Amino acid sequence: VALCQLSVTADKARNIARARAAIESAAADGAKLVLLPEIWNGPYSNDSFPEYAEDIEAGGDAAPSFSMMSDVARSLQITLVGGSISERSGNSLYNTCCVFGSDGKLKGKHRKVHLFDIDIPGKITFQESKTLTAGQDLTIVDTDVGRIGIGICYDIRFQELAMLYAARGAHLLCYPGAFNMTTGPLHWELLQRARAADNQV
Amino acid sequence: VALCQLSVTADKARNIARARAAIESAAADGAKLVLLPEIWNGPYSNDSFPEYAEDIEAGGDAAPSFSMMSDVARSLQITLVGGSISERSGNSLYNTCCVFGSDGKLKGKHRKVHLFDIDIPGKITFQESKTLTAGQDLTIVDTDVGRIGIGICYDIRFQELAMLYAARGAHLLCYPGAFNMTTGPLHWELLQRARAADNQV
Repeated sequence: VALCQLSVTADKARNIARARAAIESAAADGAKLVLLPEIWNGPYSNDSFPEYAEDIEAGGDAAPSFSMMSDVARSLQITLVGGSISERSGNSLYNTCCVFGSDGKLKGKHRKVHLFDIDIPGKITFQESKTLTAGQDLTIVDTDVGRIGIGICYDIRFQELAMLYAARGAHLLCYPGAFNMTTGPLHWELLQRARAADNQV
Repeated sequence: VALCQLSVTADKARNIARARAAIESAAADGAKLVLLPEIWNGPYSNDSFPEYAEDIEAGGDAAPSFSMMSDVARSLQITLVGGSISERSGNSLYNTCCVFGSDGKLKGKHRKVHLFDIDIPGKITFQESKTLTAGQDLTIVDTDVGRIGIGICYDIRFQELAMLYAARGAHLLCYPGAFNMTTGPLHWELLQRARAADNQV
């Protein structure tokens, strides 16, 4: 298992190339399951979500981040939990995680269910719901490395999601996240450990 | 709020006197809510549970630990979450937490729902279910200091109990516990923090 941490720039092509290089490096070190972070192909902002969004259903040139992930999963024969990118579908934008099998095929797609709206004056103010639409579905994916339940970032805050995944036989829960530094330190380690201990995943 | 930690001996009368002194000391320091530990009136063993058990429904001399708690809560006008003692009811023994209002009246009684049976060879082997019967009910108590949901020790391992308490409006969850030193360190702090963060209690 490899978790790729990426320093994201405003240059989308560069972000994609660097993500690919990180995945290739992880696979070269023997990883069979590789994970990318949340929103790794552009800046984390409401201005950027529409600009960097891809049409995942169209694929190909309309979705260069998506296409790279599919291609690299197939060529390296790894399972890839593709962090997330902003997805355009009709008139809506979603924060979407794509999971690829070792054949490069899209095995599942999770749209962030719990959008993160926060307003702590002087610390952090962010309203994902200004541009994004919340997903409505649970996402469980059967892969070469086991059955994986997917959440994105703030999805981890809600114990019910993890309980449903565990009840449906998930071996592993993956929550790509870009937590903030105000509320993050109190939550991310605690919630990951709690989901694991409570649900034995 | 005061949590009383007690060093328990085989001398029941002494355990009761020391618990009373600890409660009085806490109240003298201003505590309005005082908590005792799990099984505080005798040793934590299957041999001792029947020996130290009290008939809570009969009260009086049949239940000296119970009577002391009621008396001290009333005289000090505090809310008392009485840790737990073994309770004899008919042919059954329970691990039971009594909660007293500031009028000394029994406000609620929780019988440990999740008995702790463990067998880690060379580390710890204990089978509470050998002598004890599991409780069947949730316990929510309205007190001067708020609505309290009660669990005992291993009850904290099960997120569903805390979720039900939160859904029913509990402000505070109390889990008197005597965790073991083998599995305890990995669990007790994590689970307490998780229940609090997940359920905002």
